[in-house]
Amino acid sequence: MRTLTCVPNWEARAAAKRASTLDKIPAEWNLSPASLSKARNQRDLTGPFIQQFLNGDEIFILSKEATDIVDDIKHGKLSAVQVTTTFCKAAAIAHQINNCLHEVFFDKALERARELDAYYADKGTTIGPLHGLPISLKDQFHIKGVDTTMGYVGWIGSNLGIKDPNLSHQVESQITAELLSLGAVLFCKTSLPQTLLFGETKNNIIGQTLNPHNQNLSCGGSSGGEGALQALRGSVLGVGTDIGGSVRIPAAFNGIFSLKPTPERLSYRDVANTNPGQNTYRSAVGFLSTSLDGLELALRSVLSTQPWIRDPAVIPIPFRQEVVDEYRGRAGVDGIAKLPLKLGVLWTDRTVGPHPPIVRGLHEVVDSLRQAGHKVVDWEPPLQATAKRVHVSFLFADGAHDIHSHLDLSGEPLIPDLQEAFKLRQPMDLLKYQSLTLEGLEYEAAYSDYWNSTAERGDGQIVDAVIMPVAPHAAVIPGKYYHTAYTEVINLINYSSAVIPVTKADKSVDIVDESYQPLNPIDEQNWGAYDPEIYDGAPVGVQLVARKFEEEKILAIAGVVTAALRTYRDKA
Amino acid sequence: MRTLTCVPNWEARAAAKRASTLDKIPAEWNLSPASLSKARNQRDLTGPFIQQFLNGDEIFILSKEATDIVDDIKHGKLSAVQVTTTFCKAAAIAHQINNCLHEVFFDKALERARELDAYYADKGTTIGPLHGLPISLKDQFHIKGVDTTMGYVGWIGSNLGIKDPNLSHQVESQITAELLSLGAVLFCKTSLPQTLLFGETKNNIIGQTLNPHNQNLSCGGSSGGEGALQALRGSVLGVGTDIGGSVRIPAAFNGIFSLKPTPERLSYRDVANTNPGQNTYRSAVGFLSTSLDGLELALRSVLSTQPWIRDPAVIPIPFRQEVVDEYRGRAGVDGIAKLPLKLGVLWTDRTVGPHPPIVRGLHEVVDSLRQAGHKVVDWEPPLQATAKRVHVSFLFADGAHDIHSHLDLSGEPLIPDLQEAFKLRQPMDLLKYQSLTLEGLEYEAAYSDYWNSTAERGDGQIVDAVIMPVAPHAAVIPGKYYHTAYTEVINLINYSSAVIPVTKADKSVDIVDESYQPLNPIDEQNWGAYDPEIYDGAPVGVQLVARKFEEEKILAIAGVVTAALRTYRDKA
Repeated sequence: MRTLTCVPNWEARAAAKRASTLDKIPAEWNLSPASLSKARNQRDLTGPFIQQFLNGDEIFILSKEATDIVDDIKHGKLSAVQVTTTFCKAAAIAHQINNCLHEVFFDKALERARELDAYYADKGTTIGPLHGLPISLKDQFHIKGVDTTMGYVGWIGSNLGIKDPNLSHQVESQITAELLSLGAVLFCKTSLPQTLLFGETKNNIIGQTLNPHNQNLSCGGSSGGEGALQALRGSVLGVGTDIGGSVRIPAAFNGIFSLKPTPERLSYRDVANTNPGQNTYRSAVGFLSTSLDGLELALRSVLSTQPWIRDPAVIPIPFRQEVVDEYRGRAGVDGIAKLPLKLGVLWTDRTVGPHPPIVRGLHEVVDSLRQAGHKVVDWEPPLQATAKRVHVSFLFADGAHDIHSHLDLSGEPLIPDLQEAFKLRQPMDLLKYQSLTLEGLEYEAAYSDYWNSTAERGDGQIVDAVIMPVAPHAAVIPGKYYHTAYTEVINLINYSSAVIPVTKADKSVDIVDESYQPLNPIDEQNWGAYDPEIYDGAPVGVQLVARKFEEEKILAIAGVVTAALRTYRDKA
Repeated sequence: MRTLTCVPNWEARAAAKRASTLDKIPAEWNLSPASLSKARNQRDLTGPFIQQFLNGDEIFILSKEATDIVDDIKHGKLSAVQVTTTFCKAAAIAHQINNCLHEVFFDKALERARELDAYYADKGTTIGPLHGLPISLKDQFHIKGVDTTMGYVGWIGSNLGIKDPNLSHQVESQITAELLSLGAVLFCKTSLPQTLLFGETKNNIIGQTLNPHNQNLSCGGSSGGEGALQALRGSVLGVGTDIGGSVRIPAAFNGIFSLKPTPERLSYRDVANTNPGQNTYRSAVGFLSTSLDGLELALRSVLSTQPWIRDPAVIPIPFRQEVVDEYRGRAGVDGIAKLPLKLGVLWTDRTVGPHPPIVRGLHEVVDSLRQAGHKVVDWEPPLQATAKRVHVSFLFADGAHDIHSHLDLSGEPLIPDLQEAFKLRQPMDLLKYQSLTLEGLEYEAAYSDYWNSTAERGDGQIVDAVIMPVAPHAAVIPGKYYHTAYTEVINLINYSSAVIPVTKADKSVDIVDESYQPLNPIDEQNWGAYDPEIYDGAPVGVQLVARKFEEEKILAIAGVVTAALRTYRDKA
């Protein structure tokens, strides 16, 4: 006798969606139940583990960075079809072992790759600087013919929940069109958390995405699937968004690079979003990549299309090569100073102190910069807790009405992690909203004044950038992300930020400091969550921060820092 | 027996403030009661009328434009003291006959001029590109040692109503500091309307400022005193602000030039403002000048100080000489096309049709451009009424709480014109506020799409700029400003705009079109307010509009249009 199990309609829809995504993976790339089970019990899925499902040629192609790939295609050493096939396969395997994708459209990608190869064969030239490069996108970006669910069951098969055949699968985000015009191959969309406003990646459609480096831990969020996919080298360049750390957190947690520009440097037009009517603190489109050069390639290429002509929200600032050259010229390729950079370093925000792996990572960066002849000064800006309080107020201001309007489409509940935070509430009073706006502007001005004040302390030089933790911990233990101020402050002041990978948590050196005196209950909670055994192997990144619209500068400085780190380790 | 007349305390304070300003005018510049009475009965105070109170040398200096003045001082032909004395005298007379100033500080100005002359004598060079140039400022800008009342009785002798000796008269707006660092001489602050949100200039301290060209009419607002002072050549360069037309309206109404940049091109830091917590649609700092070159001088000079370093709200876009050169190069000095510009022309916004003088002004501009070989196409953008509805909602969203908090300091009432509009109300619901934000963004995107669509119609060329009325009438009859959409739409889309003077209302040609069929009751009201006799002599300006952050471009195009107009008239 069969037993009928009744599930709510939304669960059935979510299950069907999950299954349909897996069904789109070609049979020859399906892993065996034994392999899947092995993956479930494997702490680290990266490197050798995922490579066992790939052949040598594939591993070789996947070892290449974005700039190498476009160069190889441009010079006829690789075809777009070869590259695309390989990345589709890697992404397919990554998804099966790591659950990091919302959408796959490999057939579309291969068709596109064939067209690009035909163009190249015909004209002997590429159609643009991204010709043949597979690019993954967070599942907020619309691609024609493909769902954008943003993790909402009610959005499946529709356009933002609205089943209008003129809109469903017909809308294309501006940046999608830009990437295509530059020659990119789009092949998959990556997972994100329900609401987007969460530092982990969980939703009612796909469940959760864990950290490929250490499955005890989260891949971070909200561009979490993007970070995880790249940790597995199922992509070397992807597009995410960041309103509170959502590009930077997954980069740091997954050991990759990211660029979070100031909002309005890149187009957000026709991109799905949480509560877009809250426009005081805007989410920024950013890039995640396995290389710094990948970020620069993406920024330079997209800006070459003059996005501001099509999206009036974008500020008309072209890519400034002269800024890259200026800051890159401040050091040799080994990072050794010619004209020393001056960097601030934020050791702690005086609210929640970072765990030992993060502190060690900061020390490595500082030591390597000092050894390379650069200047590093302590950074004690206006209290981050103030910025965090103001910023988070804007995210909660509508009383979660926008979020509930999307949940209500299917009847799905909030995921348990968010049930308290996004309970439906009265929206904020407008006068309070406007008064918080003023507080935010005052904080921004005070922060800028503090930045300028570094000229008065000592050498007359204003800091070029600041080194900061991304979070007070490496890739977080699910459910234990207690303090997001390290990233949120940068959203409140709209500064530009690059994340670089620095090291990995190591239980043999990152031991618990028993003498640590927590500053407050949240600090105590965070400190208590540190467990060297669980964290062992978790990537540690730092964010490098420059002022508004200083994307070229922060990328160039990130290059100097990365080079200095390499030189420092080579000497050690 | 003396009769005691009791007046409310606020009235007494306002009267004392008025008197104290007049008291600061040196006795030798005081006009006789007979002259004052003559002025009251004089329709046009400009040119010969005000010149009767000036000597030949003074008239000669006052005939010079900003760029000539700085050149003459730089080359030792004029001293800063000579120039400053002359402008102080002209402003003193202007204020006595036209009531256009809130603050005079001629002693401070002369002291500054003496310092500049001493510097020049000592070093043989100027301290900056504005060395010795007298600049007037709207009474929102803080200058050390001087009141900023912004028309509020409760702000007299305080800092924004707060009597803190550490703040009162101690705060300096960033742009004030920038102008001083460039060598400017600040000498007076100009009148504005209570609330700033009014197209005329009236408040409880000074009463009202009328139009110097035609005292039947208003000088416009809110930078109205600035426009009036320049019509009288009591200043050739001034600083204003614009959230709904407040720089453009006074420029058009007073026959001068103005530049309204996109907000955040120039610093608004430490500038008094109405409800600064409403930051969705921001007021922009702009310039008014008796010459286009004056506007360019101001923009280039201020941007050379890199305002974004000190004010993080300012977008880091330096002055782009290459853009000026590109657009200036599109025509000869006579405006004749080399590489034809393509301009749109908005004849009517389909809600309120402009009066005959405005329509004639538009025709003159269009005819002269066509004769010069440029392209002009009709402009039919998304309905301005939509933009106006959304924009004005933001200005009213706080239910006038901010305004009443300032009125309540002294107990002064709203001026009668504003009593209905700014009655204290419930603030708007936040969800509505956020939904209006989306409507505004959608309008902006639709407008930009329409702009781009001009490439598809005909010649493949996108319009470079658009010619528009500033208002549906020349300088308005007090109390009859019924429709502000022509300026407000540009604030909703944050475009850059330059106003140029074109002609003057002329009762002999601008006759009433009796056949005009009003489109709606407001159109009928506006049409009914047109009276050729009353309007005769009122300046007619047009606004030239370019996209966001295209200030250099719109100034260069304004130069081409002005040249084409001159050539057209020379030929006629």
